[in-house]
Amino acid sequence: MSSRVTIKDVIITPVAFHDMPLLNAVGVHEPFALRSIVEIVTSQDGIYGLGESYGDSTHLSRMEKAAQKIIGLGAHDTNAIYQAVVESLPTDTSTGGDGMAGMVTTASAADKVFSPFEVACLDIQGKLAGVPVCDLLGGRVRDNVQYSAYLFYKWGGHPGQADDTYGPALDPEGIVKQAQRIIGDYGFKAIKLKGGVFPPAQEVEAIKTLAQSFPGVPLRLDPNAAWTVETSKWVAKELEGLVEYLEDPAPEIEGMAAVAKEAKMPLATNMAVVAFSHLPASILQDAVQVVLSDHHFWGGLRKSQILAGICATWGMRLSMHSNSHLGISLAAMTHLASATLNLDYACDTHWPWKRPDEDVIVDGALRWADGGVVVPNAAGLGVELDREKLAQLHKLYLECGLKKRDDTTYMRKFQPEFDPTCPRW
Amino acid sequence: MSSRVTIKDVIITPVAFHDMPLLNAVGVHEPFALRSIVEIVTSQDGIYGLGESYGDSTHLSRMEKAAQKIIGLGAHDTNAIYQAVVESLPTDTSTGGDGMAGMVTTASAADKVFSPFEVACLDIQGKLAGVPVCDLLGGRVRDNVQYSAYLFYKWGGHPGQADDTYGPALDPEGIVKQAQRIIGDYGFKAIKLKGGVFPPAQEVEAIKTLAQSFPGVPLRLDPNAAWTVETSKWVAKELEGLVEYLEDPAPEIEGMAAVAKEAKMPLATNMAVVAFSHLPASILQDAVQVVLSDHHFWGGLRKSQILAGICATWGMRLSMHSNSHLGISLAAMTHLASATLNLDYACDTHWPWKRPDEDVIVDGALRWADGGVVVPNAAGLGVELDREKLAQLHKLYLECGLKKRDDTTYMRKFQPEFDPTCPRW
Repeated sequence: MSSRVTIKDVIITPVAFHDMPLLNAVGVHEPFALRSIVEIVTSQDGIYGLGESYGDSTHLSRMEKAAQKIIGLGAHDTNAIYQAVVESLPTDTSTGGDGMAGMVTTASAADKVFSPFEVACLDIQGKLAGVPVCDLLGGRVRDNVQYSAYLFYKWGGHPGQADDTYGPALDPEGIVKQAQRIIGDYGFKAIKLKGGVFPPAQEVEAIKTLAQSFPGVPLRLDPNAAWTVETSKWVAKELEGLVEYLEDPAPEIEGMAAVAKEAKMPLATNMAVVAFSHLPASILQDAVQVVLSDHHFWGGLRKSQILAGICATWGMRLSMHSNSHLGISLAAMTHLASATLNLDYACDTHWPWKRPDEDVIVDGALRWADGGVVVPNAAGLGVELDREKLAQLHKLYLECGLKKRDDTTYMRKFQPEFDPTCPRW
Repeated sequence: MSSRVTIKDVIITPVAFHDMPLLNAVGVHEPFALRSIVEIVTSQDGIYGLGESYGDSTHLSRMEKAAQKIIGLGAHDTNAIYQAVVESLPTDTSTGGDGMAGMVTTASAADKVFSPFEVACLDIQGKLAGVPVCDLLGGRVRDNVQYSAYLFYKWGGHPGQADDTYGPALDPEGIVKQAQRIIGDYGFKAIKLKGGVFPPAQEVEAIKTLAQSFPGVPLRLDPNAAWTVETSKWVAKELEGLVEYLEDPAPEIEGMAAVAKEAKMPLATNMAVVAFSHLPASILQDAVQVVLSDHHFWGGLRKSQILAGICATWGMRLSMHSNSHLGISLAAMTHLASATLNLDYACDTHWPWKRPDEDVIVDGALRWADGGVVVPNAAGLGVELDREKLAQLHKLYLECGLKKRDDTTYMRKFQPEFDPTCPRW
């Protein structure tokens, strides 16, 4: 008979960290990105687990409510924890809370709230068993999880501040320069450009310039559904043979399906299909050929592996979406991708855009090499909480005054006429 | 850094145990049922894992080949083990080997060979972590896994032998008597009748008689695709309101889809959809509404949970299929069902049809109560190998002379004109 390790306490700490003025279809990143750090304290001395999620107030409030319901449950009882999360939500009809500035709004709230708790429980289970989290997911099939160089059009610095270390990128040349810097720093072997910022012809030009500057490197363009179906078809034609996939060109499953009928490259999404309930309609219409998984909204690591099983069954491929995140999420993403055979595209990460010294984990646990993260061997996620750093980033959260991500309002401070309506072109 | 526990040896032992003359659409059970017992010995002293699968020679040969390829792999590396199994199979074009007498022939060979290795690895992982296998699958959502009373038309005993303890059941009254005995012994709260033996009207009559004798008890009828689509529609009409589902009335996805268009009750299958590759076509046609999972051919416990995720996503329900099996399989089935929320029908089991004293596990680990098995709390599967009993059942395997399951040939010894062709009516 095994001794049962239970959840004694759940500590949710909102944090903020500096972000750069990265442009997208709905505005521009504010000076701070918000996250929540979840620490699950167990009945076993010294054993705790970590999770990381969105930091918007709506999401924080949901997590707090759910946290009260999971205290006392077993650290292995993620099925029961999921049920407790579901039961904590039924009267909650608030929208948003996903920290994605309106770009992903329909993912299951239960899956989003559950995710950091599940990751923290897997961290605990790994620590208790003395094995890395990837071993709880079937074991690693790759020792180094590849990520992509995630390029952004950006201002040189936040208005009123000096240029940041990356400086401006507002044309194809700026984008190539940014790619050279990031690839130089990390060794990435795939490139993703966040589009939806400039008229499509300019972004097509940027991809063509990237293709010339980085021959053979897989490219992706993601305008966050800023284009009509017709425009998307035109872009798809222009980029034939140049991108490994085209990400969310047009809105909704129907829009993607219409584009997919003509596009020669696979279409990828983290907007049209962001929850299990979206899969049947999408598959019926062959709307997307690559699902960008994200354990933060697909209900954690194990449900992400169910998504992987669905993709394998229906012949879709799998990649990974990212938001601004810290080291706990990077560890979780890396363990998941290392243990999921068909998650074989380079994953997205915003990692290069945060300050290297700003995190909540003890330095040195995650090692970048050769365009990827070396899968940690330590028990659990392999990362430990740096409580001093956590306190600093929580202080930053309190001081920065932000309670949710709102790229549009921030953009309108400088461009009052900015209209985030999509599709725009 | 965790210490890595690896696979040091894989011991596969074919065993036989006495079976009763249970009738089905393709013949009659032979006097012995065959199984294989898989023992994975690890690099850590005293830690071994158990799996159980089919005992047909084709399957044994595949498992032996695969076993050689997994020695040295980590006991947590089930992803790598799966790949090794796949690599052991490509030149193998033999058919059969599924121990199902031709009733399930197209399930993925890799999934079938992998399954007992995965179960044994989960047993090891649970033992190493000091938690029951259900805790490796998200934790139990039920403490008692309900099974159904699995009724069979049967002869009184094998020809030339005295009647067995159940005696004959060849008409509705015999079936009711059998149900009374089994329900009296186990407390089952659902009843399944294996049909496809007599003309459909007689089997319909048996269900109606059961409904009268056991008011309120959920009923199921499974003719193993012995009926045409037209006959199936007639039976479905006759049994409206009387069965919770109708199992495999007609052959193939197309046949099931045609029946499903008119049948008022859900249709279940363990014949038309027995591998992930069958799901897309079945779902497209809404051919089945209940998938009868079976970890022995769906690739183990974790892949069965992927199937569960697919069923939840597409609004199908989930039940569980069984073949003649011993205690290791019963433990695995119980852990899986305890940790899979939507596996909420009473599962099938052939358990009552084996002699109580014939098994390969130490007595007392699995406790029947209230129509179900109490989920074991011990680490791993919660069952231990009784090596003396294993030796006895292996001796029985060697002596009985059977190398594969062949209900048809055995039937023809007594009814030379028997024709197993389905659909028959």
